[in-house]
Amino acid sequence: MSDRIPVIAVNRVSENAKKTLDIVRKFVEEKCIPADPIFSAQIGEGAQRWDHHPSVIDDLKVEARKLGLWNMFLAKGHYKESPGFSNLEYGLMAEWLGRSRTASEAVNCAAPDTGNMEVLAKYGNEAQKQQWLKPLMDGVIRSAFLMTEPDVASSDATNIQLSMKRDGNDWVLNGNKWWSSGAGDPRCKIYITMGKSDPTNPDPYKQQSVILVPADTPGITINRMLTVYGYDDAPHGHGHITFKNVRVPASNMVLGPGRGFEIIQGRLGPGRIHHAMRSIGAAEQALDWMLMRINDPKKTPFGKQLKEHGVILEWVAKSRIEIDAARLIVLNAAIKIDELGAKGALKEIAEAKVLVPQAALNVIDRAIQSFGGAGVSQDTPLAYSWAGIRTLRLADGPDEVHLQQMGRNENKRGAAVTATINKQKAASDQLFAQYRVAREVPGPKPRL
Amino acid sequence: MSDRIPVIAVNRVSENAKKTLDIVRKFVEEKCIPADPIFSAQIGEGAQRWDHHPSVIDDLKVEARKLGLWNMFLAKGHYKESPGFSNLEYGLMAEWLGRSRTASEAVNCAAPDTGNMEVLAKYGNEAQKQQWLKPLMDGVIRSAFLMTEPDVASSDATNIQLSMKRDGNDWVLNGNKWWSSGAGDPRCKIYITMGKSDPTNPDPYKQQSVILVPADTPGITINRMLTVYGYDDAPHGHGHITFKNVRVPASNMVLGPGRGFEIIQGRLGPGRIHHAMRSIGAAEQALDWMLMRINDPKKTPFGKQLKEHGVILEWVAKSRIEIDAARLIVLNAAIKIDELGAKGALKEIAEAKVLVPQAALNVIDRAIQSFGGAGVSQDTPLAYSWAGIRTLRLADGPDEVHLQQMGRNENKRGAAVTATINKQKAASDQLFAQYRVAREVPGPKPRL
Amino acid sequence: MSDRIPVIAVNRVSENAKKTLDIVRKFVEEKCIPADPIFSAQIGEGAQRWDHHPSVIDDLKVEARKLGLWNMFLAKGHYKESPGFSNLEYGLMAEWLGRSRTASEAVNCAAPDTGNMEVLAKYGNEAQKQQWLKPLMDGVIRSAFLMTEPDVASSDATNIQLSMKRDGNDWVLNGNKWWSSGAGDPRCKIYITMGKSDPTNPDPYKQQSVILVPADTPGITINRMLTVYGYDDAPHGHGHITFKNVRVPASNMVLGPGRGFEIIQGRLGPGRIHHAMRSIGAAEQALDWMLMRINDPKKTPFGKQLKEHGVILEWVAKSRIEIDAARLIVLNAAIKIDELGAKGALKEIAEAKVLVPQAALNVIDRAIQSFGGAGVSQDTPLAYSWAGIRTLRLADGPDEVHLQQMGRNENKRGAAVTATINKQKAASDQLFAQYRVAREVPGPKPRL
Amino acid sequence: MSDRIPVIAVNRVSENAKKTLDIVRKFVEEKCIPADPIFSAQIGEGAQRWDHHPSVIDDLKVEARKLGLWNMFLAKGHYKESPGFSNLEYGLMAEWLGRSRTASEAVNCAAPDTGNMEVLAKYGNEAQKQQWLKPLMDGVIRSAFLMTEPDVASSDATNIQLSMKRDGNDWVLNGNKWWSSGAGDPRCKIYITMGKSDPTNPDPYKQQSVILVPADTPGITINRMLTVYGYDDAPHGHGHITFKNVRVPASNMVLGPGRGFEIIQGRLGPGRIHHAMRSIGAAEQALDWMLMRINDPKKTPFGKQLKEHGVILEWVAKSRIEIDAARLIVLNAAIKIDELGAKGALKEIAEAKVLVPQAALNVIDRAIQSFGGAGVSQDTPLAYSWAGIRTLRLADGPDEVHLQQMGRNENKRGAAVTATINKQKAASDQLFAQYRVAREVPGPKPRL
Repeated sequence: MSDRIPVIAVNRVSENAKKTLDIVRKFVEEKCIPADPIFSAQIGEGAQRWDHHPSVIDDLKVEARKLGLWNMFLAKGHYKESPGFSNLEYGLMAEWLGRSRTASEAVNCAAPDTGNMEVLAKYGNEAQKQQWLKPLMDGVIRSAFLMTEPDVASSDATNIQLSMKRDGNDWVLNGNKWWSSGAGDPRCKIYITMGKSDPTNPDPYKQQSVILVPADTPGITINRMLTVYGYDDAPHGHGHITFKNVRVPASNMVLGPGRGFEIIQGRLGPGRIHHAMRSIGAAEQALDWMLMRINDPKKTPFGKQLKEHGVILEWVAKSRIEIDAARLIVLNAAIKIDELGAKGALKEIAEAKVLVPQAALNVIDRAIQSFGGAGVSQDTPLAYSWAGIRTLRLADGPDEVHLQQMGRNENKRGAAVTATINKQKAASDQLFAQYRVAREVPGPKPRL
Repeated sequence: MSDRIPVIAVNRVSENAKKTLDIVRKFVEEKCIPADPIFSAQIGEGAQRWDHHPSVIDDLKVEARKLGLWNMFLAKGHYKESPGFSNLEYGLMAEWLGRSRTASEAVNCAAPDTGNMEVLAKYGNEAQKQQWLKPLMDGVIRSAFLMTEPDVASSDATNIQLSMKRDGNDWVLNGNKWWSSGAGDPRCKIYITMGKSDPTNPDPYKQQSVILVPADTPGITINRMLTVYGYDDAPHGHGHITFKNVRVPASNMVLGPGRGFEIIQGRLGPGRIHHAMRSIGAAEQALDWMLMRINDPKKTPFGKQLKEHGVILEWVAKSRIEIDAARLIVLNAAIKIDELGAKGALKEIAEAKVLVPQAALNVIDRAIQSFGGAGVSQDTPLAYSWAGIRTLRLADGPDEVHLQQMGRNENKRGAAVTATINKQKAASDQLFAQYRVAREVPGPKPRL
Repeated sequence: MSDRIPVIAVNRVSENAKKTLDIVRKFVEEKCIPADPIFSAQIGEGAQRWDHHPSVIDDLKVEARKLGLWNMFLAKGHYKESPGFSNLEYGLMAEWLGRSRTASEAVNCAAPDTGNMEVLAKYGNEAQKQQWLKPLMDGVIRSAFLMTEPDVASSDATNIQLSMKRDGNDWVLNGNKWWSSGAGDPRCKIYITMGKSDPTNPDPYKQQSVILVPADTPGITINRMLTVYGYDDAPHGHGHITFKNVRVPASNMVLGPGRGFEIIQGRLGPGRIHHAMRSIGAAEQALDWMLMRINDPKKTPFGKQLKEHGVILEWVAKSRIEIDAARLIVLNAAIKIDELGAKGALKEIAEAKVLVPQAALNVIDRAIQSFGGAGVSQDTPLAYSWAGIRTLRLADGPDEVHLQQMGRNENKRGAAVTATINKQKAASDQLFAQYRVAREVPGPKPRL
Repeated sequence: MSDRIPVIAVNRVSENAKKTLDIVRKFVEEKCIPADPIFSAQIGEGAQRWDHHPSVIDDLKVEARKLGLWNMFLAKGHYKESPGFSNLEYGLMAEWLGRSRTASEAVNCAAPDTGNMEVLAKYGNEAQKQQWLKPLMDGVIRSAFLMTEPDVASSDATNIQLSMKRDGNDWVLNGNKWWSSGAGDPRCKIYITMGKSDPTNPDPYKQQSVILVPADTPGITINRMLTVYGYDDAPHGHGHITFKNVRVPASNMVLGPGRGFEIIQGRLGPGRIHHAMRSIGAAEQALDWMLMRINDPKKTPFGKQLKEHGVILEWVAKSRIEIDAARLIVLNAAIKIDELGAKGALKEIAEAKVLVPQAALNVIDRAIQSFGGAGVSQDTPLAYSWAGIRTLRLADGPDEVHLQQMGRNENKRGAAVTATINKQKAASDQLFAQYRVAREVPGPKPRL
């Protein structure tokens, strides 16, 4: 809600965005969160889970469009298709979306479509936009981004191995992909696929290309879906997919051969802000549930309500601090993207990427613990929320890769700070002479 | 394996136990772990998951009995039915069992049957033993322990509310139970049930009774199964059960009315050792998997194998230390139980109860992180293992309850240590006089 | 430096403040930090440490005034004596001051004088201002704030016991104070003293008064100085002071009897921002030193420079994140004070109070560890910095008191969020009916 | 006290050791702890701190010898000079010694003399023993071990640079040493010094030698003492020492040129046990002080005694668990040394080296926090204790070096566990065929 924007950021949020933010909040709280259990129930059981999508989401989408909530993620100034919000402003909305399983899709701001639409809007040609961006922006189809592979350390994208070979007017693809999120949904019609088109190029960052692969292209097999702590995330799902002599017309190439790296780098910045703000929303929701629990008059272990236990109050306070600090880190990154683009905000984005999931997991885990058995079960949104956010410490590169990169970048200041400190030491030496005083030297008088 | 017993404990382990331990290890590594995926596959999908049990477990049981591995949990000297191992010795075996999903049941040492057999062996009369203990010890039926309730803070057992009313020769039970683990299995024939038989008794620890309720007694409804993160643990399951006018003959009462507290207290000690040692086994297995992963020559992010990354090596080392410290805490508790019984080992058992799951979760989470996406999925045993052990921080009372209790117990030393320190201060004052020296007083000379 | 202001805050910083910030940075880096070791050396040894103050500070003060750096802490709009900076703007300057032991005093922004000047400016009458505020603002004298007492839990100010009794035109004071920081300095001329003037007042928040006590009033004894991890902080010092029939004219009372609480509450907000931002400066400096260390070509354990060790790079990255998050929390609080005053920013101030010292201690401790033995010794500023910041987790109330208060405040949302969640559950129930779908119920078909 | 020995270890402690342990406890509690403040006061101020040693220690030594408490550290079976205790038994005693600043020296078990006596007993020739071991064992002189150097990463001992050149019958030493602990004491007569005697030897572990250097040898200058946080540890002290053409007769070489590595490796094992057990004693003492504090009826923040605050009780409980786990790790290592020698116990010693200081620091820091200002000051033993133990994370190699080494050692199992897991996977595949069941494959039916 607009009155919850941190004061440090509030003067950058337009009146229109504040108004929209209030509408988002109301829509999420009153429409989406109540619809979440219906969504789960409509998925069904067994094989049925993958052959349809819950109808409740279609009704939510109709409602959202009526309210003017649609595609808010496309940032003002960066995309001509944008409804006019900055990354900061959409970030604040995404926090509310993060409280509900259905909300992001309801307003057509769900991953991986968001990043895929950004790719198409930014790098697609007109034909590609017409064919794929338009229905995606209309919420008529869905999409997947196929990058991660099972047999290599995909956090280092130069390791990607799916083979792309030119054959006449086609590219022929062979290889394996997994964690192809969204590939389970029958509405998923397009795979934006990264592969290696020029494996012997001396520049390891020119070997990759990104190509548009229709989901029904012959030669594609979805072998299975991967689970996340027991959850299958149907009908969305995380696919393990095989490509066997999959032929795609050369016109499906995005930007051109060898430009895959450029594309995936352009894709990452805002998406990380979205994930981060949704995670903060999930953490806020977990804190709300924890507050509900500790005020439950039926829960009185050892004669006191949970809210009277000092340990629990400390959990509440620490959760408040951790969420608030994490949110400021993300909003600061969002503003930096708004001002300098994602390339100018690498440090800030990385900080958000690493800090937010850990903070959110802490908060959610405390909420789980306060609920006892209900916390790990289907009776609260907590366990599912925890499992999903746990994957963010792995997705788009594990924390450790980002920390190493950040450490190396920060360390570039090494020579400069060494020079400064040495200059300060030299200046001290001069001052010792000038003030005719000797350095403090504890210890016995020198024995010679 | 016997050569892995910590040196501090090794001289308390009999030659026979060492030999058995080696057999356990071999059986787990060569038979049970390979059978785990078959167990999962045989469960099946949808409703089918709850209508049978995987046949592979029956074959493992036959094999285990042939090897002499059966009911090792029943401690020597405490139960005449014991095969002759101490809690320490069985604890060492339980560590191996903890590496496999099927192993504990294969050797008839699976919870909650173990605790239930202990109850029956310790407190059951001959008829009760004949009817329920015998088939349980033979591995012919399974059992559940019904204590936790959804509407109260069950960590404080005085809150239990299932009503037991005497009516003629019967007790009539009404109420709700949940987290009734094992109730999903078609072989589960007996519910050892705690309820309130004397709610107005002025002694809050005499209001409860424990009674034996056959699973097919009319009036019992299994409403649903609770999930743990996304796992349903079929066919075992965690039931949410309603009792509506459930009639049980008075002869099914254990020990006698009002003795429920006594019984549940007698049940907890060794079971916590079993859980703890199995968790340590799961942590060891996670460490093994992590070692496999970091030595995988195909995983070379940024040109180095994972085992060459210092951060990962530190994870390995910390995991080693945390596991080893946790194991010593458990073994020390097991020995204390062996020597003084569970009542004499309350502090040591509580230490194990709190420390071990947290250590194991740390280790397993690091292993997950080292695997990336495979870690959270079905492709490693890690995510399932993590979810199961996470519940141990809640089951039998959340960590926080145990920590408060331990804090209060430790604080009983408060008056004594205060007296000691004050005596020491007084003795110092005397010495100042005797040595004619003044206390160090930093600061300016007193201004008067 | 102005180019390091987080983007989220930069548009609230005036051009004048940015210019001043650059001057502050230059002054601290080029004048104050080099002067720090001279300051230490000029203190001397033994009793001499308390009989003078280092002359280097006087020279720095002359230089600072020339540069226009003086009393910047007095916030624009809150004090007519203000040089015109907001709390946000001064906060950014305080970060630089925090890198040097001498800088804060050099620009007359050192605690506890800052808080004391705020008290006098806000609550003092003209005569009091003339006598004490003027020389304090001129940097001619120094001051102490006497609140904490050795024999009670002073974090709860109602426990304060120093007795104030009216006797004719005087108040007569008896009691003990400690942690009277700054009382060691010969220039410290005035003690702003809190005591109990009306111990039987039924309102526990009206029992206290604040009175101005000249340091040379008869009956005052400085018994000794307290050390902080071995440091005596001479000549400043932390005094343990006895009051024995100390007579002070009634005109020295601030605001009036019974208004002590009001005064100390008004004193706390901005001071916590100052401490927090100085701590962040100390953390940044520690990170700089760590970078120097890990780039030292002479330090090559096991054949690699420290900067090539992944664990160290992770420390650098985590330090960067923790500092940046902590800074945003403080700046957000500073802006809230600027806009709503300290009373409107209680939550934000408390977040900074708790988060910042812990973050700074983490960073400094990592830097110490990277230096090995040099880190704990006098050869780096790290150990002294750590010790000083460690006291911030205790001063003005330990972390735990603030966390409890924050927890209770956050929990005030308990009823509201419970209502919201229950409303959402009811709405779900309606939707289940509307969509004619049943809740997901894992488990076997009900056995009846 | 003997009744506090963990049950897991008690059957390895002889009756004589138990009796002695009780005497140690009584001596520490009734004599040494009261003498600690006298020791501090007798040190005095300024230069005086380094020109004498407190006389109270001499009286304690007389008393200790009368009680038969002398040189207990020299392990039975390893040294013919031993009074007959195992490393385990002395470890239990060292825990009590760790509660007092004076106790270890009082019973002639103070570092670095202990390690130095071990070196002389194990590697010294008869003349060396006569000249130096005898007076050390009699407590007549003290000693220092000079290894660490300021300009290199000394954690990697191959970096040591102090030059040793043969010149006729002498070795001539040039270079710098620091952290030469004990060098401040006027009784310190002998420096056991490591240097590089053969810098071009192709085997980097044969370049070093250890030689005995009388403290009064010409050419030696103690430049200064290093502080630990603000403590100078006078009269013991941590010296920074310069060697300029220091001539030592060749007969002072220990074992022979090039055997320095062998000697320092032999010196480390038991000393780490001693440090670790003393740290555990310091942690126990901190816990005792914390209990005193939280039971102080005068400390009642917000109307409750500290012992009634749940957060504090949790600190007490966690401290109990951490201490107990750490103690078991050390005792297990001590037993392993007793049985296999230090070389056979490398893993266990490293575990203790890393785990114990961190556990002790946690406990002591909590105690400090519970005391508020008194905790960081001279009014409790806590701050001094914390500072001393903090150095143990650096001394003898920082934690990180040990963790890397442990990680590498543990990783040696990598190939074996990979083979095991792969064998288990192959066995599973066979079982799938045998049981005619397909692997669980969540997800939609394959689209071809």
